[in-house]
Amino acid sequence: MKALVIPKIKGKWEVKEIPTPEPGPTQVLIKIHASGLCYTDVHITEGQLPFPIEFPRTIGHEPVGEIVKVGDAVDFRKIGDRVGVPWIQKTCGRCEWCLRGKNLFCQQQMGTGISYQGSHAEYMIAEAAATVLLPDKITYEQAAPVFCAGYTVYSGLRLAEPKPHEKIAVLGIGGLGHLGIQYSKACGFETIAISHSPDKAELCYKLGADLVVKNAEELKNSGGADVILATGNSNKAASESIVGLRPDGRLMIMGFDSQPIQVPPEILLSRLRIIGSTQNSPEYLYEALDLVAKQKVKVMTETFSLDNIAEAYDKVVNGKVRFRAVIKP
Amino acid sequence: MKALVIPKIKGKWEVKEIPTPEPGPTQVLIKIHASGLCYTDVHITEGQLPFPIEFPRTIGHEPVGEIVKVGDAVDFRKIGDRVGVPWIQKTCGRCEWCLRGKNLFCQQQMGTGISYQGSHAEYMIAEAAATVLLPDKITYEQAAPVFCAGYTVYSGLRLAEPKPHEKIAVLGIGGLGHLGIQYSKACGFETIAISHSPDKAELCYKLGADLVVKNAEELKNSGGADVILATGNSNKAASESIVGLRPDGRLMIMGFDSQPIQVPPEILLSRLRIIGSTQNSPEYLYEALDLVAKQKVKVMTETFSLDNIAEAYDKVVNGKVRFRAVIKP
Amino acid sequence: MKALVIPKIKGKWEVKEIPTPEPGPTQVLIKIHASGLCYTDVHITEGQLPFPIEFPRTIGHEPVGEIVKVGDAVDFRKIGDRVGVPWIQKTCGRCEWCLRGKNLFCQQQMGTGISYQGSHAEYMIAEAAATVLLPDKITYEQAAPVFCAGYTVYSGLRLAEPKPHEKIAVLGIGGLGHLGIQYSKACGFETIAISHSPDKAELCYKLGADLVVKNAEELKNSGGADVILATGNSNKAASESIVGLRPDGRLMIMGFDSQPIQVPPEILLSRLRIIGSTQNSPEYLYEALDLVAKQKVKVMTETFSLDNIAEAYDKVVNGKVRFRAVIKP
Amino acid sequence: MKALVIPKIKGKWEVKEIPTPEPGPTQVLIKIHASGLCYTDVHITEGQLPFPIEFPRTIGHEPVGEIVKVGDAVDFRKIGDRVGVPWIQKTCGRCEWCLRGKNLFCQQQMGTGISYQGSHAEYMIAEAAATVLLPDKITYEQAAPVFCAGYTVYSGLRLAEPKPHEKIAVLGIGGLGHLGIQYSKACGFETIAISHSPDKAELCYKLGADLVVKNAEELKNSGGADVILATGNSNKAASESIVGLRPDGRLMIMGFDSQPIQVPPEILLSRLRIIGSTQNSPEYLYEALDLVAKQKVKVMTETFSLDNIAEAYDKVVNGKVRFRAVIKP
Repeated sequence: MKALVIPKIKGKWEVKEIPTPEPGPTQVLIKIHASGLCYTDVHITEGQLPFPIEFPRTIGHEPVGEIVKVGDAVDFRKIGDRVGVPWIQKTCGRCEWCLRGKNLFCQQQMGTGISYQGSHAEYMIAEAAATVLLPDKITYEQAAPVFCAGYTVYSGLRLAEPKPHEKIAVLGIGGLGHLGIQYSKACGFETIAISHSPDKAELCYKLGADLVVKNAEELKNSGGADVILATGNSNKAASESIVGLRPDGRLMIMGFDSQPIQVPPEILLSRLRIIGSTQNSPEYLYEALDLVAKQKVKVMTETFSLDNIAEAYDKVVNGKVRFRAVIKP
Repeated sequence: MKALVIPKIKGKWEVKEIPTPEPGPTQVLIKIHASGLCYTDVHITEGQLPFPIEFPRTIGHEPVGEIVKVGDAVDFRKIGDRVGVPWIQKTCGRCEWCLRGKNLFCQQQMGTGISYQGSHAEYMIAEAAATVLLPDKITYEQAAPVFCAGYTVYSGLRLAEPKPHEKIAVLGIGGLGHLGIQYSKACGFETIAISHSPDKAELCYKLGADLVVKNAEELKNSGGADVILATGNSNKAASESIVGLRPDGRLMIMGFDSQPIQVPPEILLSRLRIIGSTQNSPEYLYEALDLVAKQKVKVMTETFSLDNIAEAYDKVVNGKVRFRAVIKP
Repeated sequence: MKALVIPKIKGKWEVKEIPTPEPGPTQVLIKIHASGLCYTDVHITEGQLPFPIEFPRTIGHEPVGEIVKVGDAVDFRKIGDRVGVPWIQKTCGRCEWCLRGKNLFCQQQMGTGISYQGSHAEYMIAEAAATVLLPDKITYEQAAPVFCAGYTVYSGLRLAEPKPHEKIAVLGIGGLGHLGIQYSKACGFETIAISHSPDKAELCYKLGADLVVKNAEELKNSGGADVILATGNSNKAASESIVGLRPDGRLMIMGFDSQPIQVPPEILLSRLRIIGSTQNSPEYLYEALDLVAKQKVKVMTETFSLDNIAEAYDKVVNGKVRFRAVIKP
Repeated sequence: MKALVIPKIKGKWEVKEIPTPEPGPTQVLIKIHASGLCYTDVHITEGQLPFPIEFPRTIGHEPVGEIVKVGDAVDFRKIGDRVGVPWIQKTCGRCEWCLRGKNLFCQQQMGTGISYQGSHAEYMIAEAAATVLLPDKITYEQAAPVFCAGYTVYSGLRLAEPKPHEKIAVLGIGGLGHLGIQYSKACGFETIAISHSPDKAELCYKLGADLVVKNAEELKNSGGADVILATGNSNKAASESIVGLRPDGRLMIMGFDSQPIQVPPEILLSRLRIIGSTQNSPEYLYEALDLVAKQKVKVMTETFSLDNIAEAYDKVVNGKVRFRAVIKP
């Protein structure tokens, strides 16, 4: 099969012919129909993740496709199933957090594109138990970015436990943020986009924002937000946004930045909350997919063939993709 | 191996020699060290469950023991692991609730002792993914009853979301109730037992109850409870207890009774909640086991050999066991 | 001033000239601009409330108007303030629930139109601390029904703690129900109306319902609801609706009926909740008013002059008002 | 009457004879039986609060005593009532937060000892609506420190929404911290004290701590805590403690420090929460008093006469009081 192969850290993205893998007894083989390209792919390529990764490597962790082979021990997936695979495929099954059913805290997670071969390829194996059935009415192209970008931002929205009548602000209008605005509106919240880029303002309104402000000071002056979804990877920007929170407000941190978040003393009197959020629950992924399937949320994608993946990568590196590059092998 | 075999509905409990089962690729074989006898075993024997069950049959759904064989596709369990198995071993993996990670709502649950051979036997197979590692310091005899009785009552306590300073009442002082009193105390709550039996009152105090009342009227006069754990299988008794709830109080229904619960209009002004609760989360099972392992909760058991299981059954039927019969094969 | 005076239980509604009251030091005098007529007014007139009420009496508990006199000890209200007054004006200030700040549970509540003269009059006094400032952009006519009908149904919606992506059904399409549909939609929820009346179906869709079903069976077949707002005063209808709840679903009881609610045993396995809800928090009233002020919710009113209040009463008794009679003195 | 009078910022604490105040119509006059001395008194004296305060001034904001005069418009308090007064006595009654019933967020709070004369005196007036009835069995000396120190730390505990089986760590073993340990234990939680002072370790165990660790690293190695109550006024120490949180853990910030809190990126993957907490709800004050009344929590006090208040102040400034100075006029 054809697959992206990155030869080494900071290596060039190349498409090569490699052997099609065979699923083990608890696994399935998926013919990839769409594979989203995430900025984390850049971090991996540049060697910027906080743990070692072996090269050469095929990455990609927003896979959707069709099951074409099923491992002997699997009876709940069948050939023809339309599925996607999120980041965590397997955990140790023995630690406290696995026993508690909170495997997102297991220290021995095996991730798509990290411990397993990734999805920028014609085929990919996955643990059957990690696969998620797609809703009937979602296209592969729309579904792929939900498995990381959509799942992450919708998790932040849900973990914030927004209540009716609350206002939600979205900081960072990119791959996650453009979905955050739409998810927030689809769930009925007054939604404010924070963006200092004039040309993005217009887009934010098109995506459904009730208001676009330039910065946290403007957010504060407009009345503030009950929830801020910090979708960028800048803890500095997230820290600065805190001033825009209303009393009892929550700042949801969803992206990785090695810098600390600076929380001002006002957190005390306004009873604010700074909350770390990752991909939190299969329930949230289910709902995130469903809202896209119902076309209440539309991912803005730019499609590339697998052969042109290096071009897609360059555009992602340079921030030229609006808003999610999707590879169609 | 030796195993209980019930030949038919209302049939006599007999121990027979049957073939020791072989685990499938995703399963393990457990040498049973202790198997709790639950009143549901009586319901099954008498044909009183609301779904058909095939006979002859080996039942038992509070199994703990040691893994002696591991299926080919299992890498997270090993020979020698001390494990127990709760009621739900497998679900469809395809419905909304499975996809949401709430498999307790799947309509195609495969249960221990129902879809799988039960634990009143020398050996039992189980889906490896359903097995739960036991804490180091818990004995098999103490652990077995936690897998149904303890799990159920602790789930009700946790699902009630009790807050510091709240008072918890336990209705029905039997297999579940004697654990309910102890779990409530171990978690720091002022605990009230409701029992009209004078000889049980003394026991309740020994188990840690701060107060024992005869009925809901007395409970009300004593100031009421914020949570009532209705552990019996009587919806009539549960309905009558509602009057003992304080404003914002919650009645947790944990046992099956075909009669409806009668909720008085006072629910409105006192903002009461009637909540159905079953075995709700692996997290609760983890904690229920841990509290027993730390000896903050002690199951009162009467032990029987597998050969004497018919005697144990008779005692359970006649309410002569205080409070949990455990079979040690 | 002119005021409704009901001479005795089951007496005829008459408008009489009575002395305009003087506010005490902690009170204000309100010139009534609109006064909603609630079905509870019928219960009071017919002597059907569960506590004794003295006659002759001026009732009415959905008052809005303008402050025209301010008691000597009041410094946070001033002449000209536009205000409304909810049901509870004063409580004992000494019991546990008053000390806890949950005065809705105080046993010595003093209510508008019960302990205090009601709002079907040209003027009304109220405890200043009980008055609520109206949002600028709400009309008196729209505001009045929010103080009982709107407050009640929005409280039920909020107390249900609905989460994004959940579905809300409204049972009973009357004074509360027609607001329930709109509040649910305004808050972004997929909304289902339950009504067996064909001519109401059309109206429900106009109010924003995504679906109208005839009964709970149809609700179940359509996929069910996560929350049912039972807005009628029929516990029988509420009980029958339970079958339409999805797992983890909540039935909110918001109307008084002397009959018990019958809860089927399914509550256990589906982890259902039956929740009593009244006017629960000033926060909910604030939001209920704001959503009307923003015209996201519109009360359907029929206006009557105070002189024609007997006619309004007859129409309410006979269910001829769609959906809220408002008296404009 | 005799009262502390501080002549100017950084002025000397002196006891003088000043006129006994007269209560207004909505106020009461309290004969002070005990008045707690809080470290905030030092901040006020030194001019370190972030808002201007007029001098000369009588401060003190942990007042308890007996009502000796009642304003004309007050009918829910009477002569002889044993009461205390928390920090907030009055708010504007007109802003969003007042209308929402969350007056702790009102920007025009009038505080005890700030907008009103304080409690380091023989008599004090207070808004009747702000007074809190004391439980029968609590002594004045034990009650006073609950009105600021106890209320604050118990609020932090409750706002953390600790669940059964969770572990709570207390950072800073002083006026708040020694109560935090006891409140946590009284509510049934496994409790860990963080203190690098060897002589405090012994005391912590006496107060009920299950474990005492020297720092956050040791806390982490011991298994970590689900909640950390940061009771000191050091955001630096609070920041450093974050490493000791378990996944889903919460750091409760309860003291004022002008430095920012530094939150490490780990907040993301461990789903941590940094939560600002002040005196959050009358409900928490009610419970905090009740637990002291039931002697489940005992305030460690050192008593001074009003004449010796300057000595008490010096000891507080120098950290020589274990743990709460109480003035008995």
